[in-house]
Amino acid sequence: MPHTIKKQRPFMDLSRYISKNHLFSGVSSDVLAPFLEAAQIRREEKGKFIFIQGDKAEWFYLIIDGWIKLFRDTIDGNEAVVDVLTAGHLFGESAIFDNGIYGYGAQLLEPTQYIMLPSSLLKTAVASDQKMAMNMLQVMAQHRRQQSMEIEHLNMQNAPQRIGCFLLRLCPVDVKGSVTLHLPYDKTLIAARLGMKPETFSRALATLKKDANIRVQGAMVIIGNIQELVDYTCNHCSNKFPCDDL
Amino acid sequence: MPHTIKKQRPFMDLSRYISKNHLFSGVSSDVLAPFLEAAQIRREEKGKFIFIQGDKAEWFYLIIDGWIKLFRDTIDGNEAVVDVLTAGHLFGESAIFDNGIYGYGAQLLEPTQYIMLPSSLLKTAVASDQKMAMNMLQVMAQHRRQQSMEIEHLNMQNAPQRIGCFLLRLCPVDVKGSVTLHLPYDKTLIAARLGMKPETFSRALATLKKDANIRVQGAMVIIGNIQELVDYTCNHCSNKFPCDDL
Repeated sequence: MPHTIKKQRPFMDLSRYISKNHLFSGVSSDVLAPFLEAAQIRREEKGKFIFIQGDKAEWFYLIIDGWIKLFRDTIDGNEAVVDVLTAGHLFGESAIFDNGIYGYGAQLLEPTQYIMLPSSLLKTAVASDQKMAMNMLQVMAQHRRQQSMEIEHLNMQNAPQRIGCFLLRLCPVDVKGSVTLHLPYDKTLIAARLGMKPETFSRALATLKKDANIRVQGAMVIIGNIQELVDYTCNHCSNKFPCDDL
Repeated sequence: MPHTIKKQRPFMDLSRYISKNHLFSGVSSDVLAPFLEAAQIRREEKGKFIFIQGDKAEWFYLIIDGWIKLFRDTIDGNEAVVDVLTAGHLFGESAIFDNGIYGYGAQLLEPTQYIMLPSSLLKTAVASDQKMAMNMLQVMAQHRRQQSMEIEHLNMQNAPQRIGCFLLRLCPVDVKGSVTLHLPYDKTLIAARLGMKPETFSRALATLKKDANIRVQGAMVIIGNIQELVDYTCNHCSNKFPCDDL
């Protein structure tokens, strides 16, 4: 009965994607079931706004594939890129524990598939299930630590070092010698994600190429010697390479 | 029996300080009792390190009075000031939900009185009591939002605007016209807290005085017209003044 199989398949995909996320790790099937039932899969085109800052946080989201930008608009009309996320990342999940509204907007950077889950279910599950509560706390504590490192970098590292850090976080953790990387998204967005104006980014990248043995060909980056880049970048950080959250 | 009164007083003080903190708001006395029993009050002198980055997070802390600096040392020996906290603030409370070690050090900036509470009790209470779990999530969500705003400011505001923002956050929210403030701690530390080198801070403060009608006499700051400072500072932010976390 092909009809039955067709009906079941999206549910099984959802189940796989949802249950492998740390938020649901080790959670009983009773607790998981309402999420699987209420979950909705969406595939939308580049440019689509999923929500904007100030919207009521009725859903939280899990990315299946693609890229999403979280951003805020300043009063004078500039855009602050808060984060850039891809497959496996959650977003919008903490608003329900704060003031219930999204603190940023979310926009697709390319055709992207994602799962929507009701925030109300998350609140209920966290309030009634210890494992869910602990998972949620771990998700938030980890994010808090990452944000705290980001603040440190903005305070302590110069622009070339911040680009160096961005590149190092794309490298396999056990790599030695030379590494070739592909930038995950375009340079204008990398600049915005790192809080740099495009011209600052260009100048900083030129410095990095000169001082840390980096070559850039389009979206491809060749790090001549990873240890050289680590010395250049990570001495200005309180974490040793590789970072413990990788 | 003065002896009995003397014995009870510290316990009552502890109870008052602990139970009024949001983490324990609305929590039943059964859940609160072990915290009150295990709590220890300390009064230490300026310069004392309560813990350093990488220490096992066996305690979390609540400040009664005084000032504390949270910091990290970079590998090349510079200090990143993560936060500066005073009465009513918690610190060290999220490590137990992450990797169990402190992600920063804590040092007293002046003679400071604080309460130490065992992290293990917090973990148990959060895992067994829904109200504690929700309070903890709210504490973390709020902190995450504040960090997110700080990242935005570092990305979008220039140095004079970041000082302007620091000053505005010290103002009463309903104030109009001219305001006189006292800086809560010295300018070198404010500079470090804002991620500025002392010379950058001096230059930025000079610009702010000129462009936003500010006068500074020692630790006293006179804001000529609060709306002028708001226009100068908050248009480069996604939040309207007064910020919603104040």
